Amino acid sequence: MRNLDQDTITQAVIAGFEQTPDPRLKEILTNAVQHLHAFARETRLSEAEWMEGIRFLTAVGQQCDEKRQEFILLSDTLGLSTLAVAMNNPKPAGCTQATVLGPFHVAGAPSYAHGEDVANGAPGVPCLVRGTVRGIAGDALGAARIEVWQADAQGLYDVQRPGLAQHQARGVLHTDAQGRFFFRTVVAEAYPIPADGPVGALLRATRRHPWRPAHLHFMIEAEGYESLVTHVFREGDRYLDSDAVFGVRSSLIAEWVPHDGPEGRHYTLDFDFVMNKAAV
Amino acid sequence: MRNLDQDTITQAVIAGFEQTPDPRLKEILTNAVQHLHAFARETRLSEAEWMEGIRFLTAVGQQCDEKRQEFILLSDTLGLSTLAVAMNNPKPAGCTQATVLGPFHVAGAPSYAHGEDVANGAPGVPCLVRGTVRGIAGDALGAARIEVWQADAQGLYDVQRPGLAQHQARGVLHTDAQGRFFFRTVVAEAYPIPADGPVGALLRATRRHPWRPAHLHFMIEAEGYESLVTHVFREGDRYLDSDAVFGVRSSLIAEWVPHDGPEGRHYTLDFDFVMNKAAV
Repeated sequence: MRNLDQDTITQAVIAGFEQTPDPRLKEILTNAVQHLHAFARETRLSEAEWMEGIRFLTAVGQQCDEKRQEFILLSDTLGLSTLAVAMNNPKPAGCTQATVLGPFHVAGAPSYAHGEDVANGAPGVPCLVRGTVRGIAGDALGAARIEVWQADAQGLYDVQRPGLAQHQARGVLHTDAQGRFFFRTVVAEAYPIPADGPVGALLRATRRHPWRPAHLHFMIEAEGYESLVTHVFREGDRYLDSDAVFGVRSSLIAEWVPHDGPEGRHYTLDFDFVMNKAAV
Repeated sequence: MRNLDQDTITQAVIAGFEQTPDPRLKEILTNAVQHLHAFARETRLSEAEWMEGIRFLTAVGQQCDEKRQEFILLSDTLGLSTLAVAMNNPKPAGCTQATVLGPFHVAGAPSYAHGEDVANGAPGVPCLVRGTVRGIAGDALGAARIEVWQADAQGLYDVQRPGLAQHQARGVLHTDAQGRFFFRTVVAEAYPIPADGPVGALLRATRRHPWRPAHLHFMIEAEGYESLVTHVFREGDRYLDSDAVFGVRSSLIAEWVPHDGPEGRHYTLDFDFVMNKAAV
């Protein structure tokens, strides 16, 4: 443990995890230290670069609060979130695919009944969303919990608007006995991920744009089925092939259909979800 | 860019760095993403574990303030700091070795003249520290800047004591024309690194102790020479072979010599520093 150098330090740190009671924690830390050290060795990381990394990660942590999760944003923009989702959600053909959670999911979304307007004052063009939740065998799933959240016409989630007294464009519904749901909201629009923090600075330094194609977030839970965290993306969006967080799946793209009537334009979106059986 | 899966996501993220103007930033990010993704793949990281990692890193960032640097502490306890120091400070034989900066260096240390007491009220047994700063060729280095900081008898740095009106056991001196320095302080004692934050929780989960052997920090700067960031460790300390941050070098261990006189016990520490020429 004295005189550790670049050839011996990694093994010494790993040996220090020897007494870890939780074998999974030991495995994760051992692997993480090997990759962390390999990164420093292979890049011949300078001390100034090490300090810049320390400052960057510190700034990411300090950007977080109850409404903003900059580390999830970092994970999303580095593709780690998509990798974790892809690895952990191998679903049989026919099931709705999963995609990233994103940094804007928060606890405490309000409950709505069928047909109510979850927009709750959020600006945007009216939209009616309808669909069903079924199991992989085709059976309707009644009383499934559906949580939905989205950006509004200005590309903002409610948690990005300081001083809002209530949630907007975010809500919880339950399917009826036939597995059906429907609710009113506003049309989701493309938006840039928050670019005023360290992740935004990283995107600028790498000349990557911060835009995500328009989408509606869904988190669906039904007894006996795997939880499904996914989006429905809007067909025709210009960012479908350059999503800043690498989340687009072709099977999740749907059409927002325009309708013009005496009260102006509104849209309808129809999307049916198919859930995978939970492992027993 | 659609339908990225665990086999294609890494290449897609790396391709996203293609337009990065700074080639070194591009190299570092490319390598970091490869290792980050390899870590997730090799450990088959679950989504719950991913979220636990997000929460841990967020907590590390939020533990930081002007006086506390939890990310440096994490780097130190994972051996990354020692690796970076070892890689970046290949000094010829005869030069004083470098070791980790640690999380307790702060700007604004007060200046002292030769012989003054840098303890400035910090509790501990009196100690006189004496030495010289020379170049590798043996030449005395006058007007070298010496910054020193240390834990006191209670194992605390000044920045760990809330409400202190001035710095204690931390100061800046300059060598005289013969390269000499001497100052009074208190004896450095072994101490546990701060264990009330996420890094402390990690040490407990891995059954690692948080102790560092007693040491005095030095940062020395002289015109034409490489900056030297190092410690002097105290001979006989029980933690010399299990330093929580992997920083001990045999050549940096010295004796604190006790002296008993009419005013009680005091110590002397003699240590001479040898600086490496800066690359031209």
